[in-house]
Amino acid sequence: MWRAAVLTLYPAMFPGVLGHALAGRALGRAWSLDARDIRAHAIDRHATVDDAPAGGGPGMVLRADVLAAALDAGGDDGRPRLLMTPRGTPLAQARIRELASGPGVVIVCGRFEGVDERVIEARGLEEVSVGDVVLSGGEAAAQLLLDACVRLLPGVMGHEASGDSESFEAPLIEHPHYTKPREFEGRSVPPELVSGDHKATARWRRLASLQATRARRPDLWAKYVASITGGVDKRRETE
Amino acid sequence: MWRAAVLTLYPAMFPGVLGHALAGRALGRAWSLDARDIRAHAIDRHATVDDAPAGGGPGMVLRADVLAAALDAGGDDGRPRLLMTPRGTPLAQARIRELASGPGVVIVCGRFEGVDERVIEARGLEEVSVGDVVLSGGEAAAQLLLDACVRLLPGVMGHEASGDSESFEAPLIEHPHYTKPREFEGRSVPPELVSGDHKATARWRRLASLQATRARRPDLWAKYVASITGGVDKRRETE
Repeated sequence: MWRAAVLTLYPAMFPGVLGHALAGRALGRAWSLDARDIRAHAIDRHATVDDAPAGGGPGMVLRADVLAAALDAGGDDGRPRLLMTPRGTPLAQARIRELASGPGVVIVCGRFEGVDERVIEARGLEEVSVGDVVLSGGEAAAQLLLDACVRLLPGVMGHEASGDSESFEAPLIEHPHYTKPREFEGRSVPPELVSGDHKATARWRRLASLQATRARRPDLWAKYVASITGGVDKRRETE
Repeated sequence: MWRAAVLTLYPAMFPGVLGHALAGRALGRAWSLDARDIRAHAIDRHATVDDAPAGGGPGMVLRADVLAAALDAGGDDGRPRLLMTPRGTPLAQARIRELASGPGVVIVCGRFEGVDERVIEARGLEEVSVGDVVLSGGEAAAQLLLDACVRLLPGVMGHEASGDSESFEAPLIEHPHYTKPREFEGRSVPPELVSGDHKATARWRRLASLQATRARRPDLWAKYVASITGGVDKRRETE
Protein backbone atom coordinates (compact mmCIF):
# COMPACT_ATOMS: atom_id res chain seq x y z
CA MET A 1 0.00 0.00 0.00
CA TRP A 2 1.34 3.43 -1.04
CA ARG A 3 1.29 5.66 2.07
CA ALA A 4 0.66 9.41 2.01
CA ALA A 5 0.98 11.60 5.10
CA VAL A 6 0.06 15.28 5.05
CA LEU A 7 1.08 17.78 7.73
CA THR A 8 -1.37 20.67 7.74
CA LEU A 9 -3.07 23.21 9.98
CA TYR A 10 -6.36 22.14 8.36
CA PRO A 11 -6.60 18.32 8.47
CA ALA A 12 -10.36 18.62 7.77
CA MET A 13 -9.44 19.73 4.23
CA PHE A 14 -8.47 16.10 3.53
CA PRO A 15 -9.20 13.89 1.67
CA GLY A 16 -11.10 16.66 -0.21
CA VAL A 17 -11.13 15.91 -3.95
CA LEU A 18 -9.16 12.74 -3.21
CA GLY A 19 -12.18 11.19 -1.46
CA HIS A 20 -14.07 10.86 -4.76
CA ALA A 21 -13.81 9.20 -8.19
CA LEU A 22 -10.58 7.42 -9.13
CA ALA A 23 -8.53 8.37 -6.06
CA GLY A 24 -11.46 7.94 -3.68
CA ARG A 25 -12.27 4.43 -4.88
CA ALA A 26 -8.60 3.45 -4.44
CA LEU A 27 -8.27 5.03 -0.97
CA GLY A 28 -7.69 2.32 1.63
CA ARG A 29 -7.08 -0.22 -1.12
CA ALA A 30 -4.13 1.02 -3.22
CA TRP A 31 -3.13 3.94 -1.01
CA SER A 32 -3.63 5.34 2.50
CA LEU A 33 -3.89 8.94 3.69
CA ASP A 34 -2.89 10.25 7.12
CA ALA A 35 -3.72 13.96 7.61
CA ARG A 36 -1.83 15.20 10.69
CA ASP A 37 -2.55 18.43 12.52
CA ILE A 38 0.63 20.52 12.92
CA ARG A 39 -1.06 22.43 15.73
CA ALA A 40 -1.11 19.29 17.89
CA HIS A 41 2.67 19.71 18.17
CA ALA A 42 2.67 23.30 19.41
CA ILE A 43 4.87 23.76 22.44
CA ASP A 44 3.01 26.37 24.51
CA ARG A 45 -0.46 26.26 26.03
CA HIS A 46 -1.81 28.73 23.47
CA ALA A 47 -1.05 26.22 20.67
CA THR A 48 1.09 28.80 18.86
CA VAL A 49 2.44 27.55 15.55
CA ASP A 50 3.69 30.77 13.97
CA ASP A 51 5.40 34.02 14.85
CA ALA A 52 6.45 37.31 13.24
CA PRO A 53 9.19 37.10 10.58
CA ALA A 54 12.72 37.83 11.77
CA GLY A 55 13.74 41.15 10.22
CA GLY A 56 10.13 42.38 10.13
CA GLY A 57 7.57 42.48 7.37
CA PRO A 58 3.98 41.33 6.88
CA GLY A 59 2.51 37.92 7.62
CA MET A 60 3.55 35.16 9.98
CA VAL A 61 6.14 32.38 9.68
CA LEU A 62 5.57 28.73 10.68
CA ARG A 63 7.97 27.88 13.52
CA ALA A 64 10.85 25.47 12.89
CA ASP A 65 10.56 23.75 16.28
CA VAL A 66 6.82 23.09 15.97
CA LEU A 67 7.07 21.70 12.44
CA ALA A 68 10.13 19.62 13.38
CA ALA A 69 8.17 18.09 16.28
CA ALA A 70 5.26 17.31 13.94
CA LEU A 71 7.61 15.67 11.44
CA ASP A 72 9.55 13.73 14.09
CA ALA A 73 6.35 12.36 15.64
CA GLY A 74 5.78 10.38 12.45
CA GLY A 75 9.21 8.77 12.60
CA ASP A 76 11.50 8.61 9.56
CA ASP A 77 10.56 5.61 7.42
CA GLY A 78 12.50 6.72 4.37
CA ARG A 79 9.58 8.31 2.55
CA PRO A 80 10.47 11.52 0.66
CA ARG A 81 9.43 14.65 2.56
CA LEU A 82 8.07 17.44 0.43
CA LEU A 83 7.15 21.03 1.23
CA MET A 84 4.65 22.71 -1.08
CA THR A 85 5.96 26.26 -1.61
CA PRO A 86 6.19 28.80 -4.47
CA ARG A 87 9.94 28.87 -3.74
CA GLY A 88 10.29 25.22 -4.82
CA THR A 89 11.26 23.30 -7.93
CA PRO A 90 8.37 23.17 -10.43
CA LEU A 91 6.60 19.84 -10.24
CA ALA A 92 7.13 17.64 -13.31
CA GLN A 93 5.65 14.32 -14.38
CA ALA A 94 9.06 12.61 -14.09
CA ARG A 95 9.13 13.35 -10.33
CA ILE A 96 5.50 12.20 -10.01
CA ARG A 97 6.45 8.86 -11.56
CA GLU A 98 9.38 8.48 -9.13
CA LEU A 99 7.17 9.29 -6.15
CA ALA A 100 4.44 6.90 -7.31
CA SER A 101 6.93 4.05 -7.70
CA GLY A 102 8.28 4.53 -4.14
CA PRO A 103 6.80 3.73 -0.71
CA GLY A 104 4.75 6.93 -0.50
CA VAL A 105 5.29 10.54 0.50
CA VAL A 106 5.14 12.95 3.44
CA ILE A 107 3.87 16.39 2.42
CA VAL A 108 4.11 19.56 4.51
CA CYS A 109 1.55 22.23 3.60
CA GLY A 110 2.88 25.74 4.13
CA ARG A 111 0.55 28.49 5.38
CA PHE A 112 0.99 32.13 6.32
CA GLU A 113 3.98 33.98 4.89
CA GLY A 114 6.22 30.89 4.82
CA VAL A 115 8.06 28.22 6.81
CA ASP A 116 11.19 28.84 8.92
CA GLU A 117 14.10 27.97 6.63
CA ARG A 118 15.97 26.03 9.33
CA VAL A 119 13.46 23.18 9.55
CA ILE A 120 13.60 22.84 5.76
CA GLU A 121 17.38 22.39 6.02
CA ALA A 122 17.43 20.32 9.21
CA ARG A 123 14.78 17.82 8.04
CA GLY A 124 15.84 17.79 4.39
CA LEU A 125 12.50 18.91 2.99
CA GLU A 126 12.24 18.88 -0.81
CA GLU A 127 10.65 22.17 -1.85
CA VAL A 128 8.11 21.70 -4.65
CA SER A 129 6.10 24.30 -6.53
CA VAL A 130 2.89 23.79 -8.49
CA GLY A 131 2.54 26.58 -11.03
CA ASP A 132 3.86 30.10 -10.61
CA VAL A 133 0.96 31.23 -8.46
CA VAL A 134 0.55 32.21 -4.81
CA LEU A 135 -1.89 30.12 -2.76
CA SER A 136 -3.38 30.70 0.69
CA GLY A 137 -1.70 27.44 1.70
CA GLY A 138 -0.17 24.27 0.32
CA GLU A 139 -3.25 22.07 0.75
CA ALA A 140 -4.70 22.48 -2.77
CA ALA A 141 -1.22 21.85 -4.21
CA ALA A 142 -0.76 18.75 -2.03
CA GLN A 143 -4.06 17.30 -3.26
CA LEU A 144 -3.05 17.97 -6.86
CA LEU A 145 0.28 16.21 -6.32
CA LEU A 146 -1.38 13.22 -4.65
CA ASP A 147 -3.99 12.95 -7.42
CA ALA A 148 -1.18 12.80 -9.99
CA CYS A 149 0.61 10.07 -7.99
CA VAL A 150 -2.40 7.94 -7.10
CA ARG A 151 -3.61 7.53 -10.71
CA LEU A 152 -0.24 5.87 -11.50
CA LEU A 153 -0.43 3.29 -8.69
CA PRO A 154 -0.89 -0.33 -9.82
CA GLY A 155 -4.53 -1.22 -10.38
CA VAL A 156 -5.92 2.28 -9.92
CA MET A 157 -6.54 3.47 -13.46
CA GLY A 158 -8.00 0.36 -15.07
CA HIS A 159 -9.62 1.35 -18.33
CA GLU A 160 -10.46 4.91 -17.31
CA ALA A 161 -7.36 6.45 -18.83
CA SER A 162 -4.16 5.56 -20.55
CA GLY A 163 -0.62 6.03 -19.38
CA ASP A 164 1.75 6.74 -22.18
CA SER A 165 0.02 8.94 -24.69
CA GLU A 166 -0.89 11.78 -22.35
CA SER A 167 0.65 15.22 -22.16
CA PHE A 168 3.99 15.29 -20.29
CA GLU A 169 4.39 11.55 -20.25
CA ALA A 170 6.08 12.34 -23.56
CA PRO A 171 8.10 15.55 -24.09
CA LEU A 172 5.35 17.04 -26.28
CA ILE A 173 1.86 18.14 -25.32
CA GLU A 174 -0.88 15.94 -26.61
CA HIS A 175 -2.88 16.21 -29.84
CA PRO A 176 -6.52 17.38 -29.56
CA HIS A 177 -9.30 14.84 -29.04
CA TYR A 178 -12.57 14.20 -30.87
CA THR A 179 -15.47 11.82 -30.38
CA LYS A 180 -19.08 11.44 -31.56
CA PRO A 181 -21.09 13.09 -33.04
CA ARG A 182 -19.31 13.37 -36.41
CA GLU A 183 -20.81 16.87 -36.86
CA PHE A 184 -21.16 19.40 -34.04
CA GLU A 185 -22.49 22.89 -34.84
CA GLY A 186 -21.03 22.71 -38.34
CA ARG A 187 -17.65 21.46 -37.10
CA SER A 188 -16.51 18.04 -38.31
CA VAL A 189 -14.13 15.52 -36.84
CA PRO A 190 -10.92 15.79 -38.95
CA PRO A 191 -11.27 13.30 -41.84
CA GLU A 192 -7.93 11.63 -41.04
CA LEU A 193 -9.40 10.44 -37.71
CA VAL A 194 -12.46 8.78 -39.26
CA SER A 195 -10.71 7.37 -42.33
CA GLY A 196 -9.90 4.04 -40.71
CA ASP A 197 -6.35 4.57 -42.00
CA HIS A 198 -4.15 3.99 -38.95
CA LYS A 199 -1.08 5.55 -40.54
CA ALA A 200 -2.99 8.69 -41.54
CA THR A 201 -4.40 8.93 -38.01
CA ALA A 202 -0.96 8.58 -36.44
CA ARG A 203 0.51 11.18 -38.83
CA TRP A 204 -2.29 13.65 -38.10
CA ARG A 205 -1.90 13.22 -34.35
CA ARG A 206 1.86 13.57 -34.45
CA LEU A 207 1.66 16.76 -36.50
CA ALA A 208 -1.10 18.22 -34.27
CA SER A 209 1.00 17.44 -31.21
CA LEU A 210 4.04 19.18 -32.68
CA GLN A 211 1.97 22.20 -33.75
CA ALA A 212 0.31 22.55 -30.34
CA THR A 213 3.64 22.26 -28.52
CA ARG A 214 5.28 24.86 -30.74
CA ALA A 215 2.35 27.30 -30.44
CA ARG A 216 1.58 26.89 -26.76
CA ARG A 217 4.78 25.85 -25.02
CA PRO A 218 7.94 27.43 -26.41
CA ASP A 219 9.79 25.98 -23.40
CA LEU A 220 8.88 22.37 -24.24
CA TRP A 221 9.39 23.04 -27.95
CA ALA A 222 12.96 24.24 -27.34
CA LYS A 223 13.68 21.05 -25.37
CA TYR A 224 12.19 18.95 -28.14
CA VAL A 225 14.21 20.70 -30.84
CA ALA A 226 17.36 20.29 -28.75
CA SER A 227 16.61 16.58 -28.27
CA ILE A 228 16.28 15.85 -31.99
CA THR A 229 19.26 17.99 -33.00
CA GLY A 230 21.56 16.77 -30.24
CA GLY A 231 21.40 20.12 -28.47
CA VAL A 232 22.48 22.10 -31.52
CA ASP A 233 20.14 24.32 -33.48
CA LYS A 234 20.96 23.19 -37.02
CA ARG A 235 19.76 26.44 -38.54
CA ARG A 236 22.65 28.27 -36.92
CA GLU A 237 25.20 25.93 -38.46
CA THR A 238 24.11 26.70 -42.00
CA GLU A 239 23.80 30.44 -41.54
CA MET B 1 -19.56 39.28 -5.12
CA TRP B 2 -17.00 37.38 -7.25
CA ARG B 3 -18.79 34.42 -8.84
CA ALA B 4 -17.18 31.06 -9.57
CA ALA B 5 -18.95 28.30 -11.51
CA VAL B 6 -17.40 24.86 -11.94
CA LEU B 7 -18.59 22.30 -14.49
CA THR B 8 -17.61 18.84 -13.32
CA LEU B 9 -18.69 15.21 -13.31
CA TYR B 10 -18.07 15.22 -9.54
CA PRO B 11 -19.85 18.24 -8.02
CA ALA B 12 -19.51 16.61 -4.57
CA MET B 13 -15.76 17.34 -4.79
CA PHE B 14 -16.62 21.01 -4.18
CA PRO B 15 -15.99 23.18 -2.22
CA GLY B 16 -13.32 20.71 -0.99
CA VAL B 17 -10.31 22.64 0.36
CA LEU B 18 -12.13 25.87 -0.49
CA GLY B 19 -14.69 25.22 2.25
CA HIS B 20 -12.11 25.82 4.98
CA ALA B 21 -9.75 28.50 6.30
CA LEU B 22 -9.33 31.74 4.30
CA ALA B 23 -11.43 30.76 1.26
CA GLY B 24 -14.06 29.00 3.37
CA ARG B 25 -14.62 31.99 5.66
CA ALA B 26 -15.03 34.25 2.60
CA LEU B 27 -17.40 31.85 0.78
CA GLY B 28 -20.84 33.44 0.49
CA ARG B 29 -19.44 36.78 1.59
CA ALA B 30 -16.71 37.77 -0.88
CA TRP B 31 -17.30 35.00 -3.44
CA SER B 32 -19.86 32.39 -4.46
CA LEU B 33 -19.38 28.89 -5.81
CA ASP B 34 -21.77 27.03 -8.13
CA ALA B 35 -20.67 23.42 -8.83
CA ARG B 36 -22.68 22.12 -11.81
CA ASP B 37 -22.99 18.49 -12.83
CA ILE B 38 -22.07 18.01 -16.50
CA ARG B 39 -23.96 14.69 -16.44
CA ALA B 40 -27.26 16.53 -15.91
CA HIS B 41 -26.90 17.73 -19.51
CA ALA B 42 -26.45 14.32 -21.11
CA ILE B 43 -28.71 13.85 -24.11
CA ASP B 44 -29.63 10.15 -23.94
CA ARG B 45 -31.41 8.20 -21.23
CA HIS B 46 -28.18 6.47 -20.16
CA ALA B 47 -26.70 9.86 -19.17
CA THR B 48 -23.73 9.28 -21.48
CA VAL B 49 -21.18 12.07 -21.32
CA ASP B 50 -18.21 10.49 -23.12
CA ASP B 51 -17.39 8.23 -26.03
CA ALA B 52 -14.40 6.52 -27.67
CA PRO B 53 -11.81 8.82 -29.29
CA ALA B 54 -12.17 9.35 -33.05
CA GLY B 55 -9.22 7.57 -34.67
CA GLY B 56 -8.97 5.02 -31.88
CA GLY B 57 -6.76 4.79 -28.82
CA PRO B 58 -7.24 4.36 -25.07
CA GLY B 59 -9.54 6.30 -22.78
CA MET B 60 -12.75 8.19 -23.40
CA VAL B 61 -13.40 11.73 -24.65
CA LEU B 62 -15.96 14.15 -23.17
CA ARG B 63 -18.61 14.90 -25.82
CA ALA B 64 -18.78 18.38 -27.37
CA ASP B 65 -22.58 18.48 -27.44
CA VAL B 66 -23.00 17.51 -23.78
CA LEU B 67 -20.43 20.01 -22.53
CA ALA B 68 -21.85 22.74 -24.80
CA ALA B 69 -25.30 22.13 -23.32
CA ALA B 70 -23.89 22.33 -19.79
CA LEU B 71 -22.11 25.60 -20.61
CA ASP B 72 -25.10 27.12 -22.42
CA ALA B 73 -27.44 26.31 -19.51
CA GLY B 74 -25.51 28.82 -17.41
CA GLY B 75 -25.96 31.61 -19.97
CA ASP B 76 -23.09 33.80 -21.08
CA ASP B 77 -22.59 36.64 -18.61
CA GLY B 78 -19.15 37.63 -19.85
CA ARG B 79 -17.16 35.67 -17.31
CA PRO B 80 -13.98 34.06 -18.70
CA ARG B 81 -14.44 30.34 -19.41
CA LEU B 82 -11.46 28.18 -18.56
CA LEU B 83 -10.70 24.53 -19.23
CA MET B 84 -8.19 22.85 -16.92
CA THR B 85 -6.01 20.67 -19.19
CA PRO B 86 -2.34 19.69 -19.49
CA ARG B 87 -2.55 21.01 -23.07
CA GLY B 88 -3.14 24.55 -21.81
CA THR B 89 -1.09 27.64 -21.11
CA PRO B 90 0.77 27.37 -17.80
CA LEU B 91 -1.05 29.30 -15.10
CA ALA B 92 0.79 32.43 -13.94
CA GLN B 93 0.14 34.91 -11.15
CA ALA B 94 -0.49 37.72 -13.68
CA ARG B 95 -3.51 35.80 -15.06
CA ILE B 96 -4.71 35.08 -11.51
CA ARG B 97 -4.67 38.80 -10.75
CA GLU B 98 -6.68 39.54 -13.90
CA LEU B 99 -9.24 36.86 -13.06
CA ALA B 100 -9.53 38.06 -9.45
CA SER B 101 -10.17 41.65 -10.57
CA GLY B 102 -12.98 40.58 -12.95
CA PRO B 103 -16.56 39.40 -12.31
CA GLY B 104 -15.57 35.78 -11.65
CA VAL B 105 -14.83 32.68 -13.67
CA VAL B 106 -16.43 29.58 -15.22
CA ILE B 107 -14.15 26.53 -15.00
CA VAL B 108 -14.60 23.28 -16.92
CA CYS B 109 -12.91 20.28 -15.31
CA GLY B 110 -11.70 17.75 -17.87
CA ARG B 111 -11.89 14.02 -17.10
CA PHE B 112 -11.08 10.86 -19.02
CA GLU B 113 -8.68 11.17 -21.95
CA GLY B 114 -9.71 14.71 -22.85
CA VAL B 115 -12.46 17.02 -24.12
CA ASP B 116 -13.72 17.12 -27.73
CA GLU B 117 -11.75 19.92 -29.39
CA ARG B 118 -14.79 21.39 -31.14
CA VAL B 119 -16.51 22.58 -27.96
CA ILE B 120 -13.25 24.26 -26.89
CA GLU B 121 -13.27 26.19 -30.18
CA ALA B 122 -17.02 26.80 -30.39
CA ARG B 123 -17.35 28.12 -26.84
CA GLY B 124 -13.99 29.89 -26.72
CA LEU B 125 -12.63 28.00 -23.74
CA GLU B 126 -9.27 29.25 -22.44
CA GLU B 127 -7.08 26.19 -21.88
CA VAL B 128 -5.07 26.45 -18.67
CA SER B 129 -2.47 24.08 -17.26
CA VAL B 130 -1.30 23.79 -13.65
CA GLY B 131 2.14 22.23 -13.57
CA ASP B 132 3.47 19.75 -16.12
CA VAL B 133 1.71 16.79 -14.56
CA VAL B 134 -1.16 14.52 -15.57
CA LEU B 135 -4.17 14.46 -13.23
CA SER B 136 -7.15 12.12 -13.04
CA GLY B 137 -9.29 15.20 -13.69
CA GLY B 138 -9.27 18.99 -13.56
CA GLU B 139 -10.96 19.31 -10.18
CA ALA B 140 -7.80 19.58 -8.04
CA ALA B 141 -6.39 22.12 -10.51
CA ALA B 142 -9.65 24.12 -10.44
CA GLN B 143 -9.55 24.32 -6.64
CA LEU B 144 -5.93 25.47 -6.77
CA LEU B 145 -6.81 28.19 -9.29
CA LEU B 146 -9.79 29.35 -7.21
CA ASP B 147 -7.72 29.41 -4.02
CA ALA B 148 -5.18 31.67 -5.75
CA CYS B 149 -7.97 34.01 -6.96
CA VAL B 150 -10.01 34.15 -3.76
CA ARG B 151 -7.10 35.23 -1.55
CA LEU B 152 -6.76 38.35 -3.74
CA LEU B 153 -10.40 39.43 -3.45
CA PRO B 154 -11.03 42.62 -1.46
CA GLY B 155 -11.32 41.98 2.28
CA VAL B 156 -10.36 38.30 2.15
CA MET B 157 -6.74 38.27 3.29
CA GLY B 158 -6.82 40.78 6.16
CA HIS B 159 -3.66 40.40 8.16
CA GLU B 160 -3.10 36.73 7.35
CA ALA B 161 -0.72 37.37 4.50
CA SER B 162 0.78 40.13 2.44
CA GLY B 163 0.33 40.87 -1.22
CA ASP B 164 3.41 42.27 -2.85
CA SER B 165 6.42 40.59 -1.31
CA GLU B 166 5.45 37.02 -2.15
CA SER B 167 6.95 34.78 -4.78
CA PHE B 168 5.69 35.52 -8.31
CA GLU B 169 4.07 38.79 -7.38
CA ALA B 170 7.55 40.03 -8.26
CA PRO B 171 9.62 38.42 -11.04
CA LEU B 172 11.92 36.74 -8.49
CA ILE B 173 11.17 33.96 -6.05
CA GLU B 174 11.07 35.04 -2.45
CA HIS B 175 13.84 35.06 0.13
CA PRO B 176 13.73 32.42 2.91
CA HIS B 177 11.87 33.14 6.14
CA TYR B 178 12.84 32.86 9.81
CA THR B 179 11.06 33.41 13.11
CA LYS B 180 11.53 32.56 16.79
CA PRO B 181 13.35 30.85 18.41
CA ARG B 182 16.67 32.56 17.67
CA GLU B 183 18.43 29.17 17.91
CA PHE B 184 17.00 25.92 16.53
CA GLU B 185 19.10 22.73 16.73
CA GLY B 186 22.31 24.75 16.46
CA ARG B 187 21.01 26.82 13.54
CA SER B 188 20.74 30.58 14.07
CA VAL B 189 18.58 33.18 12.42
CA PRO B 190 20.93 35.10 10.02
CA PRO B 191 22.39 38.02 12.04
CA GLU B 192 21.31 40.58 9.42
CA LEU B 193 17.66 39.77 10.22
CA VAL B 194 17.98 40.35 13.96
CA SER B 195 20.31 43.34 13.74
CA GLY B 196 17.51 45.91 13.78
CA ASP B 197 19.28 47.47 10.77
CA HIS B 198 16.54 47.83 8.15
CA LYS B 199 18.97 48.44 5.30
CA ALA B 200 21.03 45.35 6.19
CA THR B 201 17.82 43.30 6.37
CA ALA B 202 16.63 44.54 2.98
CA ARG B 203 20.06 43.87 1.42
CA TRP B 204 20.17 40.34 2.84
CA ARG B 205 16.69 39.54 1.59
CA ARG B 206 17.33 40.95 -1.87
CA LEU B 207 20.54 38.92 -2.23
CA ALA B 208 18.89 35.74 -0.91
CA SER B 209 16.03 36.22 -3.37
CA LEU B 210 18.44 36.63 -6.28
CA GLN B 211 20.48 33.60 -5.21
CA ALA B 212 17.41 31.39 -4.81
CA THR B 213 16.01 32.44 -8.18
CA ARG B 214 19.31 31.80 -9.94
CA ALA B 215 19.80 28.39 -8.27
CA ARG B 216 16.24 27.09 -8.48
CA ARG B 217 14.59 28.75 -11.46
CA PRO B 218 16.88 29.33 -14.45
CA ASP B 219 13.75 30.27 -16.44
CA LEU B 220 12.81 33.15 -14.11
CA TRP B 221 16.47 34.12 -13.76
CA ALA B 222 16.84 34.49 -17.53
CA LYS B 223 13.75 36.75 -17.59
CA TYR B 224 15.15 38.81 -14.74
CA VAL B 225 18.55 39.20 -16.41
CA ALA B 226 16.84 40.20 -19.66
CA SER B 227 14.68 42.75 -17.79
CA ILE B 228 17.66 44.53 -16.18
CA THR B 229 19.81 44.46 -19.32
CA GLY B 230 17.01 45.54 -21.67
CA GLY B 231 16.87 42.11 -23.24
CA VAL B 232 20.55 42.07 -24.12
CA ASP B 233 23.12 39.99 -22.27
CA LYS B 234 25.75 42.66 -21.60
CA ARG B 235 28.53 40.12 -21.28
CA ARG B 236 28.20 39.27 -24.94
CA GLU B 237 28.69 42.88 -25.97
CA THR B 238 32.06 43.17 -24.31
CA GLU B 239 33.40 39.86 -25.52
